[in-house]
Amino acid sequence: MPELRQNPSSKEWVIIATERAQRPTEFRGEEPLPENEHDKSCPFCPGNEDKTPKEVLAYRTYGTKPNTSGWWIRIIPNKFPALVLDGDPHREKIDGFYRHMKGLGEHEVIIESPKHNTTIALMDDKQVEEIFLAYRERYITLSKDPRFEMIIIFKNHGRAAGTSVKHPHSQVIATPITPLHVRQRIEEAMRYFDDNGECVYCAMIKKEIEMKDRIVLETDNFISFMPYASRSPFETWILPKNHQTSFIYITPEGTKELAYIAKATLKKIFVGLKNPDFNAIIYSSPVHEKDVEYYHWHMKIVPRVAAVAGFEMGSGMYINTVIPEKAAEYLRTIES
Amino acid sequence: MPELRQNPSSKEWVIIATERAQRPTEFRGEEPLPENEHDKSCPFCPGNEDKTPKEVLAYRTYGTKPNTSGWWIRIIPNKFPALVLDGDPHREKIDGFYRHMKGLGEHEVIIESPKHNTTIALMDDKQVEEIFLAYRERYITLSKDPRFEMIIIFKNHGRAAGTSVKHPHSQVIATPITPLHVRQRIEEAMRYFDDNGECVYCAMIKKEIEMKDRIVLETDNFISFMPYASRSPFETWILPKNHQTSFIYITPEGTKELAYIAKATLKKIFVGLKNPDFNAIIYSSPVHEKDVEYYHWHMKIVPRVAAVAGFEMGSGMYINTVIPEKAAEYLRTIES
Repeated sequence: MPELRQNPSSKEWVIIATERAQRPTEFRGEEPLPENEHDKSCPFCPGNEDKTPKEVLAYRTYGTKPNTSGWWIRIIPNKFPALVLDGDPHREKIDGFYRHMKGLGEHEVIIESPKHNTTIALMDDKQVEEIFLAYRERYITLSKDPRFEMIIIFKNHGRAAGTSVKHPHSQVIATPITPLHVRQRIEEAMRYFDDNGECVYCAMIKKEIEMKDRIVLETDNFISFMPYASRSPFETWILPKNHQTSFIYITPEGTKELAYIAKATLKKIFVGLKNPDFNAIIYSSPVHEKDVEYYHWHMKIVPRVAAVAGFEMGSGMYINTVIPEKAAEYLRTIES
Repeated sequence: MPELRQNPSSKEWVIIATERAQRPTEFRGEEPLPENEHDKSCPFCPGNEDKTPKEVLAYRTYGTKPNTSGWWIRIIPNKFPALVLDGDPHREKIDGFYRHMKGLGEHEVIIESPKHNTTIALMDDKQVEEIFLAYRERYITLSKDPRFEMIIIFKNHGRAAGTSVKHPHSQVIATPITPLHVRQRIEEAMRYFDDNGECVYCAMIKKEIEMKDRIVLETDNFISFMPYASRSPFETWILPKNHQTSFIYITPEGTKELAYIAKATLKKIFVGLKNPDFNAIIYSSPVHEKDVEYYHWHMKIVPRVAAVAGFEMGSGMYINTVIPEKAAEYLRTIES
């Protein structure tokens, strides 16, 4: 018998469809990692720095020049930006009906490693720490521009996750608006807080620690678990255990701990699901709402092992074919 | 310069990213239609009626028996249903925290043709009319069960659209809840009505007829156009021009006109984008809210030519690389 489960933080119902259940071992990524450590034709590979826009930040060996090799993390503007830094966030009406504004914003690429054929799951811990420290640094810097409302850090791995670029990279987009779906999640969190006097994410963490069966990993200050109402198989959330509204408040020490649990979780997914395509996203509060009691930043990892079809588009409800408790149990058995 | 556009009916902002613009002629589907009209191993092909659950309805030649060949449209329960008709829509709390309910509902498959290697764009008009008459018949029948809140009719064509079944088919799911995203769209429509005294969909139709540049096709009573804030390239909406809240009110004559404009639009997409994977969905009002002034049923066709990536998942905002006016202009030039 299928079951409907509601996510208390978003109020979304999800169908857990046991009749079409898949075994965790059935999953497999579409494409292997590239064979070679270096690809001459890849603009993100060392030696090709002149094929990208000029770097905005790089962690590099002392004495090496900007926009040459010698870096281990390199951040550049996206060559085909979704948003560009020009103009003001004024809204206009077209023909007195449709609302539009300039596509103001920032869009950067974080090249995660000089190596072409790797992925976070396989990097050494130090390199992963540096990636997360770069996330933090860009988040703090971009949040100083008062025109930005949201800063979204995300990663697309594989074609099903929306990228054809194989060199390991993440992206940051700063937007001039708080998107509707973010606003709706915040409203639900606010309502929960008003009803219960507690952050709904804090309440979920407490419940997950008590129930244990959906936990993937725990460190002193972070938890990685599959939500009770996971929208898709192996969807995994990582949160700081103590209340923290915005990613801007993470310390360098906390960033390293986050890097550790994120890498260990990604390693379990890489091994257990055989290098699936995936997205990873850091959901922070809007830039100008960074001190509220009701919101809690979190990172989501979503393996793209199931397609979004017409039913999901028509209803906004997802059909998940793997029970989250089973998914978590399986990942707990995989080395990290 | 990219542009942000807001959909007045959903309040969602979309990024129209001209810097990464693609030419309409660049698109191409992933997989061709099957070669043969009949596939012995396909459970939806005539002669294999015993490999599916028993039919709930079929349009068939006089004198032929149920669950044998002789049909031209056949409707069966889904063998692996997302929801099943058992129990009541009572909500429960798990450990006093998480909300769940039984997966009560109905899930049917509408086999659109005895032919294995066709698609609506290529069928004759009469066959397409029968498909839409079957949609109407199932909608009316299912809406009589008071436990159902929503009836969603949809179609997945191709792997990117969420199906690996090649035989042409649609699906119907009846759900015991009004999903959150449907509720949110209705709330926005309600707010627009309260502000303006007019249905927002009626207002959009009026504006599109006035502006002309996003129209794909028009008949006496229906319009097919690309929304000003299309979420993805070639997203196309079909609506009755006169206000109609629920799909339940469509007449048999209206159904035939809808079938005509839907087929003609799908033919333009099939030819112009070279058989892309696509979803088609009929968005009706909740079953028990079928007489309201603020909601207007509509059909969406969404070619799956762009992947949903981390940014879309993080923000709920879509990046569209084809300007809707250009997309509509291109489709207008294609024969239907």
